Amino acid sequence: MDAIQNYLNKHRKRFLDELLSFLRIPSIGTMPKHAPDTRGAAVFVRDQLAAAGLAHARLIETASHPLVYGEKIIDSRLPTVLVYGHYDVQPAEPEELWDTPPFEPVIRDEKIYARGASDDKGQVYMHIKAFETLWATQELPCNVKFLIEGEEENGSEGLATFLADKRNCDLLRSDVVLISDTALLSMDQPSITIGTRGIIYFEVTVLGPNRDLHSGAYGGAVANPINVLCSMLGALHDEHHRITIPKFYDNVRALSAQERADLNQTDFNLTKYQEELGIEVVMGEAGYNTTERASIRPSLDVNGIWGGYTAAGSKTVLPAQAQAKLSMRLVPYQDAQEVSEDFVSYFPSLAPAGVQVKIRTHYGGSNAIIVPTDSMAFRAAYKAFETVWHKRPLTVIGGYTLPILPKFQQLLGCDIVMMGFSLRSDAAHAPNEHFGLVNFFKGIDTVIAFYKHLTRVYTQ
Amino acid sequence: MDAIQNYLNKHRKRFLDELLSFLRIPSIGTMPKHAPDTRGAAVFVRDQLAAAGLAHARLIETASHPLVYGEKIIDSRLPTVLVYGHYDVQPAEPEELWDTPPFEPVIRDEKIYARGASDDKGQVYMHIKAFETLWATQELPCNVKFLIEGEEENGSEGLATFLADKRNCDLLRSDVVLISDTALLSMDQPSITIGTRGIIYFEVTVLGPNRDLHSGAYGGAVANPINVLCSMLGALHDEHHRITIPKFYDNVRALSAQERADLNQTDFNLTKYQEELGIEVVMGEAGYNTTERASIRPSLDVNGIWGGYTAAGSKTVLPAQAQAKLSMRLVPYQDAQEVSEDFVSYFPSLAPAGVQVKIRTHYGGSNAIIVPTDSMAFRAAYKAFETVWHKRPLTVIGGYTLPILPKFQQLLGCDIVMMGFSLRSDAAHAPNEHFGLVNFFKGIDTVIAFYKHLTRVYTQ
Repeated sequence: MDAIQNYLNKHRKRFLDELLSFLRIPSIGTMPKHAPDTRGAAVFVRDQLAAAGLAHARLIETASHPLVYGEKIIDSRLPTVLVYGHYDVQPAEPEELWDTPPFEPVIRDEKIYARGASDDKGQVYMHIKAFETLWATQELPCNVKFLIEGEEENGSEGLATFLADKRNCDLLRSDVVLISDTALLSMDQPSITIGTRGIIYFEVTVLGPNRDLHSGAYGGAVANPINVLCSMLGALHDEHHRITIPKFYDNVRALSAQERADLNQTDFNLTKYQEELGIEVVMGEAGYNTTERASIRPSLDVNGIWGGYTAAGSKTVLPAQAQAKLSMRLVPYQDAQEVSEDFVSYFPSLAPAGVQVKIRTHYGGSNAIIVPTDSMAFRAAYKAFETVWHKRPLTVIGGYTLPILPKFQQLLGCDIVMMGFSLRSDAAHAPNEHFGLVNFFKGIDTVIAFYKHLTRVYTQ
Repeated sequence: MDAIQNYLNKHRKRFLDELLSFLRIPSIGTMPKHAPDTRGAAVFVRDQLAAAGLAHARLIETASHPLVYGEKIIDSRLPTVLVYGHYDVQPAEPEELWDTPPFEPVIRDEKIYARGASDDKGQVYMHIKAFETLWATQELPCNVKFLIEGEEENGSEGLATFLADKRNCDLLRSDVVLISDTALLSMDQPSITIGTRGIIYFEVTVLGPNRDLHSGAYGGAVANPINVLCSMLGALHDEHHRITIPKFYDNVRALSAQERADLNQTDFNLTKYQEELGIEVVMGEAGYNTTERASIRPSLDVNGIWGGYTAAGSKTVLPAQAQAKLSMRLVPYQDAQEVSEDFVSYFPSLAPAGVQVKIRTHYGGSNAIIVPTDSMAFRAAYKAFETVWHKRPLTVIGGYTLPILPKFQQLLGCDIVMMGFSLRSDAAHAPNEHFGLVNFFKGIDTVIAFYKHLTRVYTQ
């Protein structure tokens, strides 16, 4: 390992400088005005893959932002790892809550602050540098392919379309898909994610009168789209915080007592959790605890709402319309397409006569996944954490979504390893997102250890 | 009348040019950035009062925007009319729905389009020109005072404070307060407004976690402030569209069958009303019709709501907070202060544990009023409409609020005449607000007729 550690020590500053350059690109994939930046991030990744030593580094065009591909096949008898990640980032709003601008990364208290620092540019870059280090030191123990996409935060539709062509699946064919887009339980307790929730995302509009009205002249006599939208959104949960969409829970499998016990073997501490979030109590579906509510139970959140007068002062308006963005997290056996259809037929039924309801589906939706823990890839990941962190990792189920994973499972037929190095407190999707330098460098060590263990278990 | 009509014909173009200059001033009183414009509108009114021939035209400072005062006392034995109006206007949002910019007035199809055209600059200016015409033609039949304020759209607090000093009430002492800030039933059916609703206005905030969260990682486990706010706002009405605030209806007096019959003697046409608003059906409190719901029944409207991600595309955020502006229209015998206190103690009780609720009262609130129809002033107004419109006016009760009127009733002890010349379709408080040229000039005629009839009934 000396050559590897020497290389890492020698190039540490350059690695970080390059990552900061990557983070400076505002690649907010869902915002049309940032489309050129998003493409710029793809070009940056391609050039970095080539510089790290990967062959055939290139952009693969999609209907939206391009995929970035590169590979290094050293011996067809060795296992092949497909590193998957994304260069697109979440919007930075509300920007006024950032201590430093989201796209002007700074290193403070041994952490990198920037949008995308942990989700997912920091972790993508960690993989590129792990590869570079192994290649440069002639220690690469397996074949590696990279597939970095630009629509992860928007449903991965371009990649899904790409995978629909079997020749493209052949290009990506590997033994393991390796993803670092998840979180560790803590720095003291490493973890491997074995499941993620699915997602469906909608934008809903309630349309009332054909123009904004004076709320004095019309108030009480005409349905107010904001009042109506609020009632409708409020009716999506019952008093037990269960979602009221018909058939919603039909395919949600209840976990066995043993499965629940396994899930709850983490060192989760409710008091700390509440303190960290600044809330006095948690709230969620009756009959489940916080760990369960955020992993193996589905959820529905309004992600944004707007309507009427929202500037300073007061305006007595009865607005012509009100809008909201909302999403649901799905669990294994719920079908995103079915639940989506159920919502689209149910939601308008909550409206009174006198308003119109429009629903726009933001992207196709994605199912939840669960990966087996008896694969060679899982064993290698487990050993990699033991080696580098000196502690056995726990398995966890993530509440978030990696929308392409069900397609990888289905079309590539390979193992999936979710080996993430961020922390829940890193503020992914929120202001002041950050990523610890120790996470970055310990992540590189763990990825390198994974490659070595993988080749060992495959060639035993 | 020939001298008067000649004068009006001769100066018609100048009158309109001056009004357009008035409308160009973006005097949005509630927006801090428009404070200088709002003051500019006050100065404009003062100069116009002086130019029209009023004496002692001046600004009277308040804690916010100034009052504008002027008077012409020709004979203390004649009745005195206090013309009250306002130079502040509602915000123009959403500006993109205006066909022409709100503060670049244009005359199109014999109507003036601009924010404030009908509410209330056009009607204030109509009074100034009615006075100018009478004074210039030596036809002024009574004493006139003008009091034009800049906080009508924000609760009239400065004026209320001014009236708290008895010496100021003495300055304003008159036989009649004459207000043109209400609407006609139609151009074929003149009307006199005999009552208006009161108002209370709040801004509410629901605070959840101390930062925006990733809705995948936390969704289902932490109370989402938008979902919570929606549920709370939804719970403010029951299934009969009645407001759920405790004691809310305790002081609401049920009208007698005769009173309801009087109220409904208008030529209200539900089909036309719905067509004009582009809605298929109306919605409101069970047991009342549209005319009643918008006049003698209280109402509660959310005027604005915002929270989370509202830009283009999608963001899977569980936001730290959500906010809304909401107001209630009150009817006679409801006390604004009491209902306000009831709301402030009730609303937070709708929140689950785990969120905080903050309530800000936007202004002090104002009670509803009803004016008697057996006064000399009412008789003069009635005759003025008969004379100019050749039709008997109906009496109506307005759903909107003129916040200072209860104070005028209480502190000045004089009659109040609400003789407005706008139309409900003029889009007050909404995009493309306008005011018909015929309304402006027929308004001048009616005001002049009112002065003459008033002096006649007072000196009979």
